[in-house]
Amino acid sequence: MRFLMVGDIVGAPGRRAVRENVPALRSGMKIDFVIANGENAAGGNGITREVAKELLSCGVDVLTMGNHVWNHKEALNYIAGEERMVRPLNYPPGAPGAGVRIFELETVKIAVVNCSGRIFMASLDCPFRAMDQVLNALEGKAGIILVDFHAEATSEKVAMGWHLAGRVAAVCGTHTHVQTADERVLPGGTAYITDVGMTGPRDSVIGVKRELVLEKFISQLPRRFEVAVGLYQFNAVLIDIDAETGEAVEIRRIQNYE
Amino acid sequence: MRFLMVGDIVGAPGRRAVRENVPALRSGMKIDFVIANGENAAGGNGITREVAKELLSCGVDVLTMGNHVWNHKEALNYIAGEERMVRPLNYPPGAPGAGVRIFELETVKIAVVNCSGRIFMASLDCPFRAMDQVLNALEGKAGIILVDFHAEATSEKVAMGWHLAGRVAAVCGTHTHVQTADERVLPGGTAYITDVGMTGPRDSVIGVKRELVLEKFISQLPRRFEVAVGLYQFNAVLIDIDAETGEAVEIRRIQNYE
Amino acid sequence: MRFLMVGDIVGAPGRRAVRENVPALRSGMKIDFVIANGENAAGGNGITREVAKELLSCGVDVLTMGNHVWNHKEALNYIAGEERMVRPLNYPPGAPGAGVRIFELETVKIAVVNCSGRIFMASLDCPFRAMDQVLNALEGKAGIILVDFHAEATSEKVAMGWHLAGRVAAVCGTHTHVQTADERVLPGGTAYITDVGMTGPRDSVIGVKRELVLEKFISQLPRRFEVAVGLYQFNAVLIDIDAETGEAVEIRRIQNYE
Amino acid sequence: MRFLMVGDIVGAPGRRAVRENVPALRSGMKIDFVIANGENAAGGNGITREVAKELLSCGVDVLTMGNHVWNHKEALNYIAGEERMVRPLNYPPGAPGAGVRIFELETVKIAVVNCSGRIFMASLDCPFRAMDQVLNALEGKAGIILVDFHAEATSEKVAMGWHLAGRVAAVCGTHTHVQTADERVLPGGTAYITDVGMTGPRDSVIGVKRELVLEKFISQLPRRFEVAVGLYQFNAVLIDIDAETGEAVEIRRIQNYE
Ligand SMILES: [Fe+2]
Ligand SMILES: [Fe+2]
Ligand SMILES: [Fe+2]
Ligand SMILES: [Fe+2]
Ligand SMILES: [Fe+2]
Ligand SMILES: [Fe+2]
Ligand SMILES: [Fe+2]
Ligand SMILES: [Fe+2]
Repeated sequence: MRFLMVGDIVGAPGRRAVRENVPALRSGMKIDFVIANGENAAGGNGITREVAKELLSCGVDVLTMGNHVWNHKEALNYIAGEERMVRPLNYPPGAPGAGVRIFELETVKIAVVNCSGRIFMASLDCPFRAMDQVLNALEGKAGIILVDFHAEATSEKVAMGWHLAGRVAAVCGTHTHVQTADERVLPGGTAYITDVGMTGPRDSVIGVKRELVLEKFISQLPRRFEVAVGLYQFNAVLIDIDAETGEAVEIRRIQNYE
Repeated sequence: MRFLMVGDIVGAPGRRAVRENVPALRSGMKIDFVIANGENAAGGNGITREVAKELLSCGVDVLTMGNHVWNHKEALNYIAGEERMVRPLNYPPGAPGAGVRIFELETVKIAVVNCSGRIFMASLDCPFRAMDQVLNALEGKAGIILVDFHAEATSEKVAMGWHLAGRVAAVCGTHTHVQTADERVLPGGTAYITDVGMTGPRDSVIGVKRELVLEKFISQLPRRFEVAVGLYQFNAVLIDIDAETGEAVEIRRIQNYE
Repeated sequence: MRFLMVGDIVGAPGRRAVRENVPALRSGMKIDFVIANGENAAGGNGITREVAKELLSCGVDVLTMGNHVWNHKEALNYIAGEERMVRPLNYPPGAPGAGVRIFELETVKIAVVNCSGRIFMASLDCPFRAMDQVLNALEGKAGIILVDFHAEATSEKVAMGWHLAGRVAAVCGTHTHVQTADERVLPGGTAYITDVGMTGPRDSVIGVKRELVLEKFISQLPRRFEVAVGLYQFNAVLIDIDAETGEAVEIRRIQNYE
Repeated sequence: MRFLMVGDIVGAPGRRAVRENVPALRSGMKIDFVIANGENAAGGNGITREVAKELLSCGVDVLTMGNHVWNHKEALNYIAGEERMVRPLNYPPGAPGAGVRIFELETVKIAVVNCSGRIFMASLDCPFRAMDQVLNALEGKAGIILVDFHAEATSEKVAMGWHLAGRVAAVCGTHTHVQTADERVLPGGTAYITDVGMTGPRDSVIGVKRELVLEKFISQLPRRFEVAVGLYQFNAVLIDIDAETGEAVEIRRIQNYE
């Protein structure tokens, strides 16, 4: 079975990239299931019902999130009720929505997990223990398990890859908005990449207008960040998984440009 | 002219990788000048005179550093007197050593700068203003300028790329120990990559034995980190620069494995 | 000469505390000059022209600021033109406003400096070197120098006290919103306190409604913080300075309650 | 019943301060039970069996710890077996030692809890939920509950005070090494102070030789910190608790000087 994992979708250019790439890739490359990180899909920050609907209607099967998950107030309600949306698993108990959702494709049960790192990020619960718990709970309930690990530090992301090696089909890092070149299948059949990258405006600073970021970094004065305009980049990984064993066979990086 | 920039060399496996790859690449790919980041070369942390000597004797022309620069006490003296060593430019005035060194290759003057980011890192002086100052000082003194920007946050690294686009020949990120796949030549002829990656033990957590890192992350108890053993990876980028204009023409990623 | 330094004024309760305490203290305790930290005066975050005007009209001679200085956009213009306002000195060159202002009281020239720490805070320029520079520049221009050091870490604040001991009349810490009990006159005649405390709603979490802060800390979900209501506390220090020598003679803590 | 809580004991000067103050205070002020924070007791960093023994033999009934708890390797074994030692409660499951210990004094059962904050600190488990759990577990098992909340940010400490108000007899903050002046009895009979302060060398930067700290802050070069020498300060709070109700009646700050 063939999966596509799309890196953080940023604003309108990112959504345009999804519309122009996902349907074509689905049919052209015979992709069975598409996961996309949507934490920056609405104006660069968070998600709204409308934006999620747009993405879920053009070939994305499930949206994962990250630290920007609640930026739009409506997300608190919306995400709770949307079964095709997964927010970081390791929020304290009581958070709206779910950190894992199970999908059925023909006879295969696919679990999609979103988990957040803690290094240089908010103090969520331990992601390693949270993953242990969810894998226990998924025992016998999913043939294929895919994890979007949304984290900043490479040490935490690589460590999570090894923590889950042989236990899940894929660990795809997100959040840094820069695709890494370390994709590989870890021992035990776990496809791994430190970061899938960004699907958004190319000539930007991780999605934002570059002059605004530079002004802020240099002056240390507040600048209201805006999503950059112009040509997009589409960053994703293609993962082939043996549906019998739940093990990944291959992971390949994709970079398309407008 | 052809340059090789080698990503953070970690411990003995990293040094073995340099010995086995740099001389061969130099001759096989007609490389003129080799820069390597050596901040983790001595046992995973910092550098010593002996370790530097070893690296500088097997094809490396200059060693750049980073946040681990002073881990070995002897580095404070050694780096001050070693002209083939560059430490982060934006240390406060009075720090030993130099943030920029100029090399002559035939008639071409090559300036190598090492600069450190501040986001999620120590409070050095502003890297953007420090680069502005050093470029002013280098005016007319170097035909080719190469920058190792040692930083954690992708936003700061990408922003530095744009800050220096058209002003230097290359901005190569280091520090995260994971190679990124965003190499490109920015407008104005500046080769850019967010991170060159790591030259060190492959099946590790950014160079460290993975079980130690995982134990620490999960237990939050102290663990003395040790460089992992086993097969190495060699991460670098190859940059072609027009010596007349000082502009980069191409940047290519290199990943060799034992 | 007698000075009053008022700790971070938070919102309407803080402003009410200033109105009800400063004029009475001025006359009752024969205070000559009043400095107040106003970084949270407007709704708990930043300052506006109107709010500053109110404070400056009820006995405050000069307002110092901190990390919230630019929260209200109008502050960028307002602060530049308001001579009774001092923002952190160690912003990069080009920031609006001034980090030091000189006031004349009879024949005594009083310099008021605002400086910001960096530990756990934004990456401003080195506060220790910034203070060295400003003291050089003030040489011969001010008989009494008072410093509001706005910082988080006690280590950085205590270190600044020792750095300036014998060189200024007072180093008063602000920012943590909790008054410390370590007031003393350091050798050389420098009045010191790690934090002057908060002038704002008492039964709160450093000024904010406590249930909102607790909900946020426990759920890790976003909560819009609101200034707490109810009775105020007024936190300040009284400093006696010898106008001849520019040295502090005594520092006393003040805590008034509604 | 009368309790004494002693702030972070730093190195030899801190231990001398304990020896010279605790026994005298015990008898002179009829103190029934003494808690002291010992995380910096051994050379400024962590604790050893020998150092703990010394403190426990001169009037300290129980030692609480903090982020430096494991600095000395032997602490990992020692703390596990020492019933008069409490380490932060919110370490992940499996950490050596205990986060709460119960002591019997005549017929009164006294629970001493040590808990660590997370803001600007290591990623331990949520301290608020950890406290909820331990209070549940202590239900009916302790008449008096005292909490040493070892944390950096005033917001987190004040919030913990309100979280536990009416549920424990005392919440005493530690870690910043500067005593705060906000001691009070919160509604419900909970004695609270943001920080008890430091018991250690007075003319220092939170216990360390001040020239070393300043050199490090200014040069950003490594400096090996050493405990300052010279006269000590003794920082503590005295808490009167009604043994019948388990509620605090009064909290008073103590500062003794050599
Ligand atoms: Fe993102
Ligand atoms: Fe993110
Ligand atoms: Fe490194
Ligand atoms: Fe580094
Ligand atoms: Fe404030
Ligand atoms: Fe502040
Ligand atoms: Fe401490
Ligand atoms: Fe501590």
